[in-house]
Amino acid sequence: MPAHSNLKPVLTAAEINALMATIFPQLNDQFTFYEALEVFPGGCVVRLNADERHLRPGGTVSGSALFTLADIGGYVCVLSHAGPDALSVTTSLNINFVRKAESGLIDGHCRILKLGKSLMVFDIDIVAGPEGHTVAHATGTYSIPPKRIDGVVK
Amino acid sequence: MPAHSNLKPVLTAAEINALMATIFPQLNDQFTFYEALEVFPGGCVVRLNADERHLRPGGTVSGSALFTLADIGGYVCVLSHAGPDALSVTTSLNINFVRKAESGLIDGHCRILKLGKSLMVFDIDIVAGPEGHTVAHATGTYSIPPKRIDGVVK
Amino acid sequence: MPAHSNLKPVLTAAEINALMATIFPQLNDQFTFYEALEVFPGGCVVRLNADERHLRPGGTVSGSALFTLADIGGYVCVLSHAGPDALSVTTSLNINFVRKAESGLIDGHCRILKLGKSLMVFDIDIVAGPEGHTVAHATGTYSIPPKRIDGVVK
Amino acid sequence: MPAHSNLKPVLTAAEINALMATIFPQLNDQFTFYEALEVFPGGCVVRLNADERHLRPGGTVSGSALFTLADIGGYVCVLSHAGPDALSVTTSLNINFVRKAESGLIDGHCRILKLGKSLMVFDIDIVAGPEGHTVAHATGTYSIPPKRIDGVVK
Repeated sequence: MPAHSNLKPVLTAAEINALMATIFPQLNDQFTFYEALEVFPGGCVVRLNADERHLRPGGTVSGSALFTLADIGGYVCVLSHAGPDALSVTTSLNINFVRKAESGLIDGHCRILKLGKSLMVFDIDIVAGPEGHTVAHATGTYSIPPKRIDGVVK
Repeated sequence: MPAHSNLKPVLTAAEINALMATIFPQLNDQFTFYEALEVFPGGCVVRLNADERHLRPGGTVSGSALFTLADIGGYVCVLSHAGPDALSVTTSLNINFVRKAESGLIDGHCRILKLGKSLMVFDIDIVAGPEGHTVAHATGTYSIPPKRIDGVVK
Repeated sequence: MPAHSNLKPVLTAAEINALMATIFPQLNDQFTFYEALEVFPGGCVVRLNADERHLRPGGTVSGSALFTLADIGGYVCVLSHAGPDALSVTTSLNINFVRKAESGLIDGHCRILKLGKSLMVFDIDIVAGPEGHTVAHATGTYSIPPKRIDGVVK
Repeated sequence: MPAHSNLKPVLTAAEINALMATIFPQLNDQFTFYEALEVFPGGCVVRLNADERHLRPGGTVSGSALFTLADIGGYVCVLSHAGPDALSVTTSLNINFVRKAESGLIDGHCRILKLGKSLMVFDIDIVAGPEGHTVAHATGTYSIPPKRIDGVVK
């Protein structure tokens, strides 16, 4: 897998978590379910602390909860690498669910495949359990809004 | 688009909603956000009544909420056409977000593309607003577990 | 499915076929395999005349041939609705193969889900056989390059 | 990214290339465009030697050629890890094109995300150019037909 040594984060994981608590309060309500663990050049690690609320019939973590983790992974990448613009939006996301995940800690290892001026493409390996098996894998695209300086689109 | 007149639902929308309230209480908690409106041969209509809780930064309905609606659309198709086996699971889902959606009623028009013995493929047009514009479109696959009769896989 | 009566093609199917023969000679070489059958507001119909060359192990039409038909469907939509700019490129494509297709005529019914200034999102139902069953379904995105007038990006 | 040390190939790259030449002659016709470079536990490397024939308008390698490389990557994984059953078929493939690729050598680094009895899920990083940049990334699923021993499905 190619390195992305030319990419440089502009925010840390702690700064991202504080930012998300402000701009996206719906995400975690009173509890900390989703959080950024780490931000590094070209990617990040995000975590879901899955409990009863995230389960679906069969007692496994729901597709929606894993989709949200994947989406958050991309969001943390775009916020940390393109700057804290809350208005970047997902334009597409493709997710494969390959194993059932129990409640507990679920980590998403997220990688920027391309950071352009108006689009960011990423993928994420979502792993869980004592052996760190992949439970889902997703690829997605964020649209990055044009920078505005003094009201002018740059 | 081809008709699927050879497919026949085995459950109605009302039966599906009652079933989901029992097997998937996490979905709607105390409120009715997601529900099946209609089941017809080869497809269904599902609805999200989006409120403050479903918004993301920017004040539009979150990708997770639309993903969940798409996933529920497929779930209603598989429950209604392959029988009320709660253990069918999503194996993949691809979603494109094409317009922002405000809170309010959001409808998913879902169509079965293929119903096999072990897999169902579906797509869903998610529409919203007074003019019924497409806000998202998704395609997904459900795995259908083998039927067990008296403990024996059929 | 919502109508797109506000979209208006600027090229006909015949104009598109002539354009593709000029700008994309690799597509059909000496034979006419892929062609636009029809262009209408908000969509188009494209056709693959599959022969021995398009088969894969098992004697069915290859995934690559169906991918190409899906991609051509999007290309015809973007050329016909956004203007004959050969440099629009696919940024993502998701395809589900739901039935095997024999050689012969294979039609793609293509629909524009969103036509923006810089992106077009489409889906396509690929049908084949005497009963017109869906053999594949795809969703994709084309990037539309900025218009240049007198060397200036508009 | 998790290791897959528990997966063991049953065919080498050379055996795969010989097998593909027999079962899938359409792939390479008289020339060697697509080939397996390496097979290792849990994955493989495949290569496209792109020339004039693989270009699209704009002079870059076509989406179809990269789709085919991704699909071949999954095919080599399934043949090498689940056995030389030519009838495994792609059920879905999602591809993102992130940079333009010139003609020349294009390598696909392919990884098995899940190898089940009836499905294999894989992803592939497609890299090109002197700096080995990612030009495309795909995720896909192969259906593995049931083994038949003495005419009986096992």
